Amino acid sequence: MDRIMLAHGGGGKAMEDLIKNIFLKSMGNEILNGMEDAAALNIEDVVPSLPDSGDCRLAFTTDSFIVKPAFFPGGDIGRLSVCGTVNDLLCRGALPLYMSASFIIEEGFEIKKLEKIAGSMAKTSREAGIKLVAGDTKVAEKGSVDGIFINTSGIGVIPPDINISIKNARPGDAVIISGTIGNHGMAVLSAREGLEFESPLKSDVAPLVEMVQNIISIKGAVKVLRDPTRGGVAEVLNEIASRSGVGIEVWEEKLPVDPAVLSACDMLGFDFLHLANEGKIIAVVAHEKAKDVLEAIKKSRYGEKAEIIGRVNNSGLVTLKTRFGTFRIIDRPFGELLPRIC
Amino acid sequence: MDRIMLAHGGGGKAMEDLIKNIFLKSMGNEILNGMEDAAALNIEDVVPSLPDSGDCRLAFTTDSFIVKPAFFPGGDIGRLSVCGTVNDLLCRGALPLYMSASFIIEEGFEIKKLEKIAGSMAKTSREAGIKLVAGDTKVAEKGSVDGIFINTSGIGVIPPDINISIKNARPGDAVIISGTIGNHGMAVLSAREGLEFESPLKSDVAPLVEMVQNIISIKGAVKVLRDPTRGGVAEVLNEIASRSGVGIEVWEEKLPVDPAVLSACDMLGFDFLHLANEGKIIAVVAHEKAKDVLEAIKKSRYGEKAEIIGRVNNSGLVTLKTRFGTFRIIDRPFGELLPRIC
Repeated sequence: MDRIMLAHGGGGKAMEDLIKNIFLKSMGNEILNGMEDAAALNIEDVVPSLPDSGDCRLAFTTDSFIVKPAFFPGGDIGRLSVCGTVNDLLCRGALPLYMSASFIIEEGFEIKKLEKIAGSMAKTSREAGIKLVAGDTKVAEKGSVDGIFINTSGIGVIPPDINISIKNARPGDAVIISGTIGNHGMAVLSAREGLEFESPLKSDVAPLVEMVQNIISIKGAVKVLRDPTRGGVAEVLNEIASRSGVGIEVWEEKLPVDPAVLSACDMLGFDFLHLANEGKIIAVVAHEKAKDVLEAIKKSRYGEKAEIIGRVNNSGLVTLKTRFGTFRIIDRPFGELLPRIC
Repeated sequence: MDRIMLAHGGGGKAMEDLIKNIFLKSMGNEILNGMEDAAALNIEDVVPSLPDSGDCRLAFTTDSFIVKPAFFPGGDIGRLSVCGTVNDLLCRGALPLYMSASFIIEEGFEIKKLEKIAGSMAKTSREAGIKLVAGDTKVAEKGSVDGIFINTSGIGVIPPDINISIKNARPGDAVIISGTIGNHGMAVLSAREGLEFESPLKSDVAPLVEMVQNIISIKGAVKVLRDPTRGGVAEVLNEIASRSGVGIEVWEEKLPVDPAVLSACDMLGFDFLHLANEGKIIAVVAHEKAKDVLEAIKKSRYGEKAEIIGRVNNSGLVTLKTRFGTFRIIDRPFGELLPRIC
């Protein structure tokens, strides 16, 4: 294999291998190697002259967005680019504060579209309480970039006593998803391919600030947070199992899926567990706090359809208990199911 | 004008108008509107629970790199992407600390090239003392992105007592450039067009950490720092004049230019003042400290050919005093002289 394949950008095993073999090999360090959704930086390392920082840390994350089409049912690349970075910060337990935005635009792109995208970013930033403080604009000649690509990077602050990491799942913990699965992936796919379904499919793209702030304030409850974007729920569950050294059992009957997504999946032969979500979190929480967390999510914006979907065990495998009581393994996707989903 | 033109990415007037009319209009705030090379964030705003932070600030900046070709004499997109962000942080007087890197790669891109780029980023990061702590990788299908684009965002810390801003130039101040002008732009152009000159042209791409740390430690000396990238020296001088509300007189006989760049400019009809530099700073310094600053730059790596090239006045214009004693106005470029130079 001597060339980049679409699979290398799919959020699955091929991407992990590429990152480890190329980027971590030459540029790895104790922070980058953690491969978390956001880096956690000790304030004392950032500003050594500071007196005791009371165990606060900075969270720092970056994401580029190349979604096709740039406008899709339920959102656009502008809203997506803000939510992606906001939700990555939240997944370390950080309060999102500051954001940068860098645009790569194709020569000939309609300025009206750009205005719409900027307006969408502004609206979403206000909702998320994050402030855009740095930007960059590049233009490439026609044919060198497909429309518009946006990078956002974000800074947040992780309060003392918060320790959320992909390594923290332990047998007995409950696994919660904050709502229905697969809406973003299926909405983008249908927009791209011009598919029409009986019920309209809409992306779930949303900033989950209120939801995450509500649940991390429940003491000793939340251990892992991850947003199931590329690679979907299947990828995230496998990453948690592998990085925490545990197994996870998921109950099919508890998985919340919109009927429209389910029937589109049936028709097109997709597994909704592999579809991207852009307004959902998977939370691994202490067993005894699971109901409190579920209730807090359900009361939050975008969390009405949350469910406890499974339990962490020590099997080392991610398994699905079907409606019929049988088990199957939930594999991580190798590569790219749907390119340019985010 | 209803579509994006290459000029909108050229670093000149067209780009400024686009930023103001689209991005600042919908997303502007007191920090973003400053349009500095990096945002300065009060630590107290970032971490309100902190005790007195001693007037330290965080610097935060972002840049996307789409240079064509990705490999050029004297550097590559990897080294460029690190230097661009490092130098932007330095231009606010910050010590660069942490960096993110986000890759958008074309399907089919050679993995060997990617390894070379990552190696180059690693080497340059080590030289600059900046640590990569967050990353992202996207792959777009063949034809949707031209090779590889890289975004880097960076965080640094601005020590107390440092107040460097594009608004700080005052009549009487000296204007210094840290070395020869136009090397990056001409090197990329020659590589792209397959031009061959008698003397080889090399990009100046370099991280200027040592140089800037040396000069900002001279008390009360440095008022403005800016790296003359897109739009070149002409653009930066005009930005300083306009944002500080001053004029600048530049002395042609003092401008350091490599003979190879000069003869290439003559041949191709370019003005070297419009060419991009990626390892240079323009410093506006207090008149009485100008010689100390010049000496400190000359002693630093990449600063041997520094010169005092002019003086700030109150004319409101940027003028060039030619070798013949006549004057001409140095205009800011309207748009894109050389697309995809960085």
